[in-house]
Amino acid sequence: MSENNNPDSRKNSKYQQILQAAIKIFARQGYYKSTVSQVAREAGVADGTIYLYFKNKDDILDHFFSYKTREVFSCFQQEVRRADNALDKLRNLIRRHLLEFENDRDMAVVYQVETRMRRRLSDIKIKEMSDMYFDLVSSIVRQGQQEGVIRPDLPIALFKQVMIGAIDEVITTWLYSSGKYRLTSMADPLFELLIRGVGEKN
Amino acid sequence: MSENNNPDSRKNSKYQQILQAAIKIFARQGYYKSTVSQVAREAGVADGTIYLYFKNKDDILDHFFSYKTREVFSCFQQEVRRADNALDKLRNLIRRHLLEFENDRDMAVVYQVETRMRRRLSDIKIKEMSDMYFDLVSSIVRQGQQEGVIRPDLPIALFKQVMIGAIDEVITTWLYSSGKYRLTSMADPLFELLIRGVGEKN
Repeated sequence: MSENNNPDSRKNSKYQQILQAAIKIFARQGYYKSTVSQVAREAGVADGTIYLYFKNKDDILDHFFSYKTREVFSCFQQEVRRADNALDKLRNLIRRHLLEFENDRDMAVVYQVETRMRRRLSDIKIKEMSDMYFDLVSSIVRQGQQEGVIRPDLPIALFKQVMIGAIDEVITTWLYSSGKYRLTSMADPLFELLIRGVGEKN
Repeated sequence: MSENNNPDSRKNSKYQQILQAAIKIFARQGYYKSTVSQVAREAGVADGTIYLYFKNKDDILDHFFSYKTREVFSCFQQEVRRADNALDKLRNLIRRHLLEFENDRDMAVVYQVETRMRRRLSDIKIKEMSDMYFDLVSSIVRQGQQEGVIRPDLPIALFKQVMIGAIDEVITTWLYSSGKYRLTSMADPLFELLIRGVGEKN
């Protein structure tokens, strides 16, 4: 996808170290107020070292989106493949999504805040992320329709919006509840709500 | 709710004019990059006039949240009261929510972007907004449970997160689709998805 990332540099531990430090700084101070020097200090490297791997602060965030997104996404895909039927796939996807964010709170903050900000700019990386998610959800829905467990008239594009919006809001609510409950405790109730809806069947 | 807003000044046309101009500027340039001078120019008033009504740029956004939120919210409540049964209330609420944002695109942009930003700061006004919405949704759900059309085991707090997250995402998707469809065309499909879920009943 992102042609400007050299796979060798991505595997480099200093690259990883800087990226991880940047996420911590962006999460705590907000992207706008963070500086490359602060990232360097957090990563324990000289300012100049940052520029061996990244063009500037924007580029660090770009790399975060493309690198982290790809990493998290391959977890999602593995998790989906682990299940046979569509409903288990959907359940696994939701649970893994919440688990990844539960396990990396700084990443969660940066995603929740900066994705929204950059979406304003119709950022190409956000678009890619959104498309990948759409493809994954569509394939699950189509399988579920073939299995007869997902209704054939479901508007898939809308369902993807509802699902991602719901997950997003569940993560944000959790972030600001400051650890009063586990994020993953919401996975099964959320899955059930999406499947059953709120209506009483009668 | 917001004790620092003088109702007289709120009805003042210059106050309104400045607020409207500010929303336009914030929507187009982002809040962070906007200046009080730009707002003054857009509103056709002197810089000093702004300070008769607002302490600073932050205060303008605060007023926007409390004034606009209250205005939009009273529309929601009217719309809900217009219906008798719970499902019609929910349908009306969703439709009106989308309609208000369809009709004021600048407001939509500022809400979608700045709410998210300020939520980071656990802003008190955002909390109030979220609580009002929760109260409205809960009362509809409880009525629906009494009427036997909403299942009694529905987790209300989660449903509110799903509903607001879904609406949010539907609005954001529409904003960046640049008017290819009417936002309100999503109201009935969204209502139906929330009520029926995605599952095939068999």
